[in-house]
Parts: sequence; C-alpha cells; structure tokens
Amino acid sequence: VGDDCATLLPGAGMELSVTADMLVEGRHFLPAVDPRALGHKALAVNLSDLAASGAAPRWFFLGLSIPRADERWLQAFADGLFSLAQAHGAELAGGDTTRGPQVVISITAIGEVPAGKALTRAGARPGDDVWVSGALGGAALALMHPEIPEASQRLHTPQPRVALGQKLRGLASACIDVSDGLASDLGHILERSQVGARLSYESIPKDGPLKGMDEALRRRCVLSGGDDYELLFTAPAAQRKSIQALGEVTRIGEIVDGAALEVVDGKGKPVPYESGFNHFP
Amino acid sequence: VGDDCATLLPGAGMELSVTADMLVEGRHFLPAVDPRALGHKALAVNLSDLAASGAAPRWFFLGLSIPRADERWLQAFADGLFSLAQAHGAELAGGDTTRGPQVVISITAIGEVPAGKALTRAGARPGDDVWVSGALGGAALALMHPEIPEASQRLHTPQPRVALGQKLRGLASACIDVSDGLASDLGHILERSQVGARLSYESIPKDGPLKGMDEALRRRCVLSGGDDYELLFTAPAAQRKSIQALGEVTRIGEIVDGAALEVVDGKGKPVPYESGFNHFP
Repeated sequence: VGDDCATLLPGAGMELSVTADMLVEGRHFLPAVDPRALGHKALAVNLSDLAASGAAPRWFFLGLSIPRADERWLQAFADGLFSLAQAHGAELAGGDTTRGPQVVISITAIGEVPAGKALTRAGARPGDDVWVSGALGGAALALMHPEIPEASQRLHTPQPRVALGQKLRGLASACIDVSDGLASDLGHILERSQVGARLSYESIPKDGPLKGMDEALRRRCVLSGGDDYELLFTAPAAQRKSIQALGEVTRIGEIVDGAALEVVDGKGKPVPYESGFNHFP
Repeated sequence: VGDDCATLLPGAGMELSVTADMLVEGRHFLPAVDPRALGHKALAVNLSDLAASGAAPRWFFLGLSIPRADERWLQAFADGLFSLAQAHGAELAGGDTTRGPQVVISITAIGEVPAGKALTRAGARPGDDVWVSGALGGAALALMHPEIPEASQRLHTPQPRVALGQKLRGLASACIDVSDGLASDLGHILERSQVGARLSYESIPKDGPLKGMDEALRRRCVLSGGDDYELLFTAPAAQRKSIQALGEVTRIGEIVDGAALEVVDGKGKPVPYESGFNHFP
C-alpha cells in the first residue's frame, strides 16, 4: 500500500491460483441492490473460483468505479466485502477507485496451492463419481420469487466453498463451481476431460424453498439455474468414503465414455434440461 | 485458460509485484479514442507500475466491459494490447468480457522480482540524487495541443520503462513512475521516505515539442503534467556513474532533510509549481 505495486511473497513450493471477474451495474446487478450484499457477492464469486481450484485465498485487488462518493453506500459495500474477506483470510493488497457513470466492480483474487496440486476441469475419467456440495436451485428460484428470503439469500450472499475446495486436493479428479448452472458447468468438465456423464435427477440435492414448487420450475432451477456457487466435482470411486466424510456433499451420478450429459429419473427415463448460459448474448 | 483460475508458478526465490488499474470511458478516455492506442495504454500504465517496482512482467488479467461486440474495434484494441504485451514478455492469463453501457477496462498485471529487491517509494535518504528517465511534459502538452503528433504520441502510446526499472534494482533507493506529474509523484516519494528535495528546473529534460512554447505552459507541463510514464527515482551519489551508464536518465536534483519540495532556477530562485492531482475530485 502506497507503492506502485503490491509486493506478494508466495510460500515456498506454492503455485498461485488467480481469477478476475468484473461486475457491471445493469448487467450483473441492479442499481437498487443492497450494497452490503453487493460487496459480499463481488468477492464471493472470486473466492468460489479459488475454491474450485483448491486454493487458499491470500490476496485480492479491487477496482471500483462509482458515480459519486456516497459514504453510506461505500461503507455498506466495504462491510460486506471485508467481512467475507476476513472470514476466508483474504487481504486487500491494492486497487483503484474512480468515478464513472455506473457502478463497475473488478476483483482479482489470488490464492495459493501446493505446486502441481491445483484442481482443474480436465481430470474426470469414466467410472468417476460426480459430486456436488450443498443444494442447488435456490439462487435461480430467487430471480422468479424474490419474496422467498431463503432463496434471496442464496442469490445475493452466496457462501463460497473455500474450506471444501482445499480438502478436495488429492481426492477430486476435476472441479468447477456452479455459476452458470449444473448442466452448463458439468458440460465444461465433460468438454475439457473429453468424457460424458449420467446424473440421477432424484439424487441431486434441491434447495429447501423449491419443495412443493411446480416440477418444471424445480427442474429448471436445479439443472440450469446459476449463481449457486456450490462445488461440482468428480472423483474416483475409491475415494467415495473419504469424500463422504467431508460432509455436505452428495453423489449425483457418474462419468461415462462419450461426450453426452444424460440426466435420468428413478425409472431411467431422460429428464430434459437446458444448458448454454451465455455470458455475452 | 478454461479453468476457474489461472495457475501461475513463480520462479524460485521470486516475489510478485502486482498492480491493478481501471480505465473508464468518459473519465480516462473519450469514446472516440483510437482503440489500438487504448489497448496499448491500458496495459502500458500497468507495465509502468511494474517497472517502477523493478519487476519483470510475467502475466496479466483483462476485464473488459463493452457496449456491443464491434469486431473491428475489438481487433484494434487487441492489436494494441498484445503488441505491447509481447514486446515485454507479458502473457494474458485470464479475464472476463462482459457487456455494459460504456467501455471499462480493468487490468491486473503481475511481475516477478527477486525476493526483497522490489523498488519502493520509501528508501530515499538525504544526499541521494534525484533522477528521471527520458523527458517530461509531452503528454500534458497533448491535452492542450492535440495537433502536435509527437506530443499526442506521448499521451496516447506511452512506452513503459520496463527494462530500465529492472536495471535499477540494487541502484535506486526509491522509485515511482510519473503518472500524476513530477511534483506530485516526487511528493509521494518524499512523504513515504520522510525527506525533502531540491530540484534544478533547468536540469529537468523537457519534451521536444515544448521548445518555444510559453514559459508558464512549459513549466506546468514539465512540473505538473501527468501521463509521461517515465521513471522518477533516487539513488545514493555513489551510484552516479553506474546510473549514468544506463543511458536515457538525467540527474535533476537531490534529496534533502525536511519535507518540502523546492524547485529552483539557474539563479537559485524558486520556480512555482502546482501539485496535487486528484484521482477522485
């Protein structure tokens, strides 16, 4: 702080995992968003990327463009940001605040992982189990039903799976976080690993508020909803007990030969899903 | 590329210098700016920060928000960006493109420096020489006289002093890049080092196009103009020969006790200057 650059000393034998995300008002959030939640979420999506690579958060850089210096807004934004940062040991190492017509937040987060141990999307093999942490669909439900507090909380203050990601090093064969939706994000693993997958729809843990909702809506939220920031990963069947012991994870299917993602119901019948969330439509 | 994070392996015994800057349309550049120059400058300002810390550029992350996918604009922007990146060995390691009402560019650049050898603003001592690379004032002149090609080039396609910065490790006692103007940026060194300085106005190298201009304008451009991206540094007098041998550097004054910055003419008379460029007026 106070120099042209921040100087960071990585631990001996450590590789760095680095991720950068930009959030633009009107595109990723509405002007009326609660600034505390916005500060939280802006960092959370980056910490979730670090979690998916198995890295321990160390530092982050914040670029912030805002229309005017509104003290209360800034204070709430900072509260949300730094509470989450502190909870996960991430230190603000530098950045830049500027004025611009709308709010833009750009965060670069840097974590550490023992050299060669970072989790990627490329290691899934036929026969591996497919796992997911927590439950899915709540964040997407909140887009349609913002009046449900539990769903709204999933959408606006996601909790990145930072501790779990680090525990998965050496266990998981591939890992990603669920930001675009289960089908899309598993699709990224399948593509990079050059494999297919078969999921049991009934095994997929569904967020509480989805109970009793219309089945087509449930399915859409669970399979295609984004923003859950759970970890979706694969692991050899031999690791099943070790992974189960981590808690808060559910086995939802298996990796198979081929390139297709198939989701089936209890009778083995295909369950339709949409994928292909596009960041730049 | 293709994973949630980029995985970077720092060299053994290396520290990382990291800098992050955000450029916002309407604030840092006009909508009509040449996209090639914009791509160049967006990276140049970050490479200049790395230079000021004595680091060798390694990686950068790009966040880009643009109103629409204009192929020609994007191609020119990328040309400017990657030409400069390639010239200095910086590799695009990740990033994010999104849509937003105006152009916002956020770059995080990461360089390497042997552990403990990074240049800072804090090491200037009374008796040290004050040095600057190249010549000053051209970029500021271009704001007033955009019709002068040489000045315009200084403003729009600054050349970061990447090689010089690395050569200054072990020689300079403090270093900064001239982004806000000589008086302001030297002020940062003085404040952090808790010293004062006395500069000889006549010794300060002035950009060619300033020749023959009104003296008040010259003075303002040279002492208070920003955006030159030259290196401003201090060094013990014992290093004078080694530094002179680096070429393209000029000794412009000395560090003294106190906290004041004094600029004097050939007769020892004070030369007035403005400082205090404010990034958030």
